[in-house]
Amino acid sequence: MTGMKLNDIPAWKKLIRHADIMSRPEKHLKYLLEEKDRLINFSLNGAGIFYDFSRQRLDEQTMGLLFKLSDARRLKEQFTAMVCGEKINTTENRAALHTAARNFSGNPVFVDGKDVMPEIIRVREDIKGFASQVHDGKITGSTGKPFKHMVVIGIGGSYLGTEFVAQALDPQADKKIEMSFLSNVDIHNFGSIASAIDPETTLWIVISKSYTTAETMANTHQAYAFMTEKGLDPAQHFVTVTSMGSPGDDPSNPVLSSFHMFDFIGGRYSVTSAVGGVPLSLYLGYERFERFLKGAQDMDLHAQNAPVEENIPLIAALISIWNNNFLGYPAHAIIPYASPLSKLAAHIQQLNMESNGKSVTQSGELIDEPSGIIIFGEPGTNAQHSFFQLAHQGRPFPIDFIGVINPHFKQYQSQSKGVTNHQELWSNLIAQPQALARGKQDTNPAKSFSGNRPSSTLILNDLSPENIGRLLSFYEAKTVFEAFVWGINPFDQFGVELGKTLATDIRKQMAIKNQSSKHRFDDVDPITRFYLETLFSGK
Amino acid sequence: MTGMKLNDIPAWKKLIRHADIMSRPEKHLKYLLEEKDRLINFSLNGAGIFYDFSRQRLDEQTMGLLFKLSDARRLKEQFTAMVCGEKINTTENRAALHTAARNFSGNPVFVDGKDVMPEIIRVREDIKGFASQVHDGKITGSTGKPFKHMVVIGIGGSYLGTEFVAQALDPQADKKIEMSFLSNVDIHNFGSIASAIDPETTLWIVISKSYTTAETMANTHQAYAFMTEKGLDPAQHFVTVTSMGSPGDDPSNPVLSSFHMFDFIGGRYSVTSAVGGVPLSLYLGYERFERFLKGAQDMDLHAQNAPVEENIPLIAALISIWNNNFLGYPAHAIIPYASPLSKLAAHIQQLNMESNGKSVTQSGELIDEPSGIIIFGEPGTNAQHSFFQLAHQGRPFPIDFIGVINPHFKQYQSQSKGVTNHQELWSNLIAQPQALARGKQDTNPAKSFSGNRPSSTLILNDLSPENIGRLLSFYEAKTVFEAFVWGINPFDQFGVELGKTLATDIRKQMAIKNQSSKHRFDDVDPITRFYLETLFSGK
Repeated sequence: MTGMKLNDIPAWKKLIRHADIMSRPEKHLKYLLEEKDRLINFSLNGAGIFYDFSRQRLDEQTMGLLFKLSDARRLKEQFTAMVCGEKINTTENRAALHTAARNFSGNPVFVDGKDVMPEIIRVREDIKGFASQVHDGKITGSTGKPFKHMVVIGIGGSYLGTEFVAQALDPQADKKIEMSFLSNVDIHNFGSIASAIDPETTLWIVISKSYTTAETMANTHQAYAFMTEKGLDPAQHFVTVTSMGSPGDDPSNPVLSSFHMFDFIGGRYSVTSAVGGVPLSLYLGYERFERFLKGAQDMDLHAQNAPVEENIPLIAALISIWNNNFLGYPAHAIIPYASPLSKLAAHIQQLNMESNGKSVTQSGELIDEPSGIIIFGEPGTNAQHSFFQLAHQGRPFPIDFIGVINPHFKQYQSQSKGVTNHQELWSNLIAQPQALARGKQDTNPAKSFSGNRPSSTLILNDLSPENIGRLLSFYEAKTVFEAFVWGINPFDQFGVELGKTLATDIRKQMAIKNQSSKHRFDDVDPITRFYLETLFSGK
Repeated sequence: MTGMKLNDIPAWKKLIRHADIMSRPEKHLKYLLEEKDRLINFSLNGAGIFYDFSRQRLDEQTMGLLFKLSDARRLKEQFTAMVCGEKINTTENRAALHTAARNFSGNPVFVDGKDVMPEIIRVREDIKGFASQVHDGKITGSTGKPFKHMVVIGIGGSYLGTEFVAQALDPQADKKIEMSFLSNVDIHNFGSIASAIDPETTLWIVISKSYTTAETMANTHQAYAFMTEKGLDPAQHFVTVTSMGSPGDDPSNPVLSSFHMFDFIGGRYSVTSAVGGVPLSLYLGYERFERFLKGAQDMDLHAQNAPVEENIPLIAALISIWNNNFLGYPAHAIIPYASPLSKLAAHIQQLNMESNGKSVTQSGELIDEPSGIIIFGEPGTNAQHSFFQLAHQGRPFPIDFIGVINPHFKQYQSQSKGVTNHQELWSNLIAQPQALARGKQDTNPAKSFSGNRPSSTLILNDLSPENIGRLLSFYEAKTVFEAFVWGINPFDQFGVELGKTLATDIRKQMAIKNQSSKHRFDDVDPITRFYLETLFSGK
């Protein structure tokens, strides 16, 4: 299915030639935008999201060729295989079933002949019960006081998705439990959290599939020591989210509760599992978490069932390939005109760059085309006052603009220049893609805009839990569709291993030195030695 | 001085040929790192920063050619011209004197024959006096209660630098005044701040040079209305940081105090002026703000006086040009292994991309080489668990690693795997550049690392105010040195104008509609009309 080399696919070859045509002056976006019904022809509604790709550098022929590429790579069939539990994570011999985490269809999902839904539903019920008991004050800390603060200890996939969703739904967080994230092993993270919390009313949630992640374990040790020193019993202040039978799910090391993760859901796809479920249910209430899951399911079903020509994440993935492999853009920005989505770019940065930053195909061959791109972003209008100078007059990069029709905080309606703040925000959301696409000539070259800079615009009706789920699932599906085109495995991450191995060697040197101050770093390379000596000398 | 085309400079032409040589297999970083004294030959100490560029893809010959390029572009002379008040911002006919904001030499700095230092010193004294009166409770809100919260209203250059420094020095913020930033016009920003503060004890700091920035004015109107509605007199809860004589410095619109900005300090270079001075002095105390300034001055003097071969920001700029224009990397990551520096990348993203995202030279010619690059970053080790998969096995990009020898929070010394958290952090800081540079072959292609991925490492002794000033000034000087090589003006930002113009037209349409609900958007293009109708229909 993914065995054919990209350069051997007829549609791929045609797209290379077609990109030359689309790079001609007469194909400048300012002309494409003059086409009748441009917006109608290049926009879609589906699963609660409006997706406008009229400001992308493409035409009907481009889309036709991209759809042929989709057929050649059997994108929809691969997606269905994923959803149905096939072991498409071949390098690790695992299924990739984040979609099962939000399956409310009542239908089974089989892995190795076993239906995984009962386990998934049991974990959801565990979370629901736990959250409600915490909210009702039936589960408390060791001194009987209700929990008012939770610290989520986890890094990467055990952190970024939850932070994104928590921030997106923050105006609805009415459970009177504050949330902090202890991700980095940097002692500054632990130190500032320790300074800010009341230990007696703090619940620590340790999230690690293997329960061996170095950073997470180091922070958990600090937290245990801290609570013990305060005279509080850690067993009544900790929960774990981890694999069944891991060191974090060991009755000899008691905690308030353990919630299970599964090997068929990878970290960066795990926010709809217990990884997001436990902290988000505590923060927002389980009911809102389930609404978030149901929104994600909506988009999953759209991605699986909508025809190629109407399939929003699939088309977004094809456009991403078009921009990357044919038009040559090496980066992509995500600019939500909605501050609650301020952590979206950081989450998608991880999701997409860790999934698709690969150089070999599933079958172990070097890819003959660049795969993953650099993803970055900040909310608009902030981004306009930061790096949009480069977007307009420097090195171009495609952008996803995201708008929300109905904001929260409707009570604040002061007007400036005749418009509300929300309208001011939208005047910019509407203006920026147009300015980037059309450009403007000026006799002063410093004030000229070349235009022809592509973007898409996604519109959500509001920031409901459902819509956040839809948005999340959109980017997850887009990411895996991209991988399916390239023929890479978006579910492994062997690229992080070498650094871990080298860090282990260096950590050992430090541990020896901690034991014996006379230890000299004779066995390491000169640069490593220099840095070790610098750290231990303190200057 | 910048008139010669880059491609006509002999050193530039030689660098093109030399880049071919440095791209040969035998010049892989794993071999360069075997050279005797590699670290000694390719690292520098200066102005409190250790700068290691041994893991860049360069050798003695590269550096020799880059130094010739520096001479050809007269980088040091241009820097001196800047510091001395020449109007090097030619498109706006202004000097660029952020260095004067931290000049404690006692020497004058002339603009148009007038010494600007007395004015700068007067503003510093104003800030010092105001901050101490607020801290002493001599200046209070309208009900006589001391200020416990400040909200900084400003966007872009009036926001990002201050946020970076405030966060970097947060463990030293002992003045019991909390700080929020109201930057985005998005009503969610205002709404969440309004929900979190006690208006009676809140001071609003409005920062805008022209006092006409749309977002800042819209938020200021919201804040005025909010305070008035609470029965509080805005005149006793607002200060402004603005140009002398702007609408924010108008006695008919009274405020607690106005602090002046100057047209010779641009927004993104303004954190050492009153823009950063007022909020940071309130947050940290004026004394720490002055220490921060003195650190910045240290690096300014180094950048101006150190010979080319020992000049850290100049060499960093040359390496950036080498990586961009000769080795072809389109992006650059900033990865501080210190969470207090978590906003550094966002600040430098603005500083560098807005300064250097240009397509024309100072003399108005199209540049014949790409200029600005994409800057992004997150703290390590978080970044390792996010996008480092791509850094190791996908599309390569150069990285600045930043380490801090002595952290705060030394009271937390629990060990995991025989090392403290800070040591664990450093084991990763040491391991990552090595892994990226050396790579590793494996019989399994999915587990192979091509290596040859460049990085620099910057080390600070600690997170003192002085060192944060040095780090800031390092990146400011690096940014302008890059611009001097390209011959572009790093101080204007005409690229943001077109979007503003279009937004103004759209805002007018909205304002008319707000007045007359029957207004139809007949005069705008179909896409704009669609979005306007969507917003007003609410669905």
